[in-house]
Amino acid sequence: MKKAVVLLSGGLDSTTCLAMAKAAGFDPVCLAIDYGQRHAVELERARKVALAMGARDFRVVPIDLRSVGGSALTADIAVPKDRPETEMSHGIPVTYVPARNLLFLSLALGLAEVVGAYDIYIGVNAVDYSGYPDCRPQFIEAFAALAGLATKAGVEGQRFQVHAPLSGMTKAQIIQEGTRLGVNYGMTHSCYDPDAKGRACGRCDSCLLRKKGFQEARVPDPTPYTEGA
Amino acid sequence: MKKAVVLLSGGLDSTTCLAMAKAAGFDPVCLAIDYGQRHAVELERARKVALAMGARDFRVVPIDLRSVGGSALTADIAVPKDRPETEMSHGIPVTYVPARNLLFLSLALGLAEVVGAYDIYIGVNAVDYSGYPDCRPQFIEAFAALAGLATKAGVEGQRFQVHAPLSGMTKAQIIQEGTRLGVNYGMTHSCYDPDAKGRACGRCDSCLLRKKGFQEARVPDPTPYTEGA
Repeated sequence: MKKAVVLLSGGLDSTTCLAMAKAAGFDPVCLAIDYGQRHAVELERARKVALAMGARDFRVVPIDLRSVGGSALTADIAVPKDRPETEMSHGIPVTYVPARNLLFLSLALGLAEVVGAYDIYIGVNAVDYSGYPDCRPQFIEAFAALAGLATKAGVEGQRFQVHAPLSGMTKAQIIQEGTRLGVNYGMTHSCYDPDAKGRACGRCDSCLLRKKGFQEARVPDPTPYTEGA
Repeated sequence: MKKAVVLLSGGLDSTTCLAMAKAAGFDPVCLAIDYGQRHAVELERARKVALAMGARDFRVVPIDLRSVGGSALTADIAVPKDRPETEMSHGIPVTYVPARNLLFLSLALGLAEVVGAYDIYIGVNAVDYSGYPDCRPQFIEAFAALAGLATKAGVEGQRFQVHAPLSGMTKAQIIQEGTRLGVNYGMTHSCYDPDAKGRACGRCDSCLLRKKGFQEARVPDPTPYTEGA
């Protein structure tokens, strides 16, 4: 079985992505990034998800982005709540972490080189992407081209493939596909601002998109929200 | 004055690069990466260099690459010593850190976005590059193109420039240029395997290239090597 590095946050998207990588016949090496995010519960969920889904390897790279700042997820900026969707879909939100996916893909590429994988999975999607520039397909394509120039393996003639299978799927379609593949969404976490016990707030952009996705997919939402359920 | 993010390791190359960014009229925001390298003395030197050269800002991003491994600088692999130059110039050495410059540039880009800089300086050079693929000019060019796609600033129409002014210069030329700009090379650190007091070993590839550079530049080498001086 060919290995693939799967970026895993423990959220709905990346967990579905892991299930899709397995369904495509890859042996997944999961990579979680501990980037000083407020929602550290993510990492715990990521580890549980990787274990439950039989990943061969789960690695965490700690990186402290607080000295860079600039995002509601890593600096002292409030996470917006109860935003109507019309507002969510305009502009780039304060939860944008500067160059985050570029950074994550760079780390995934380094790990791919070390473990001998030439495939990387990232659960970005451009439909419900909430305004992040580094979720767009043209970014993913440009990164794959750069990967060949950046690495020892690339110089030696290997080609890297960056899979973003959720690209173009709505949240509802992602949930339907994951459900078909047997994903237990009760294990996943999406909230930007969970309480001390890790329970989802139900009101940030991420919770709102998640709820709407389950409604549209006509799949019961297993998430215990503290508010706005 | 326009700001520029300067990747600074406290080594000979990046310190010269900082001097060149200043000479080009930029207000430097220095970024050092604490990536679990064996030679942690680098960071202390980087801070001193930034201070001595009047940088407005010095930031450190800690990232632990030990869970990725794969390099003599971050894993338990021996640093090679006393290699003849013919051997050094062939193949990619064990001191290669997978996708390191891609990772560093990604972090620099994120910081650039936060501080409102559109110029990034990186002290790579392709002549004495010791075989690292991510020091080649074609890599740097491809990264600059990707930067526009990866960021909020890029989406909003800003263009990022990645300056690699040492590209194409020999170590001797770098030392001559830095000397002309008043760099105190006694503050800089190059060794891959320093002793507990931070003194250079004099025998790793980096020390050997440094020594040769000073000889060829006909500039006295201020480095107190423990061996092979």
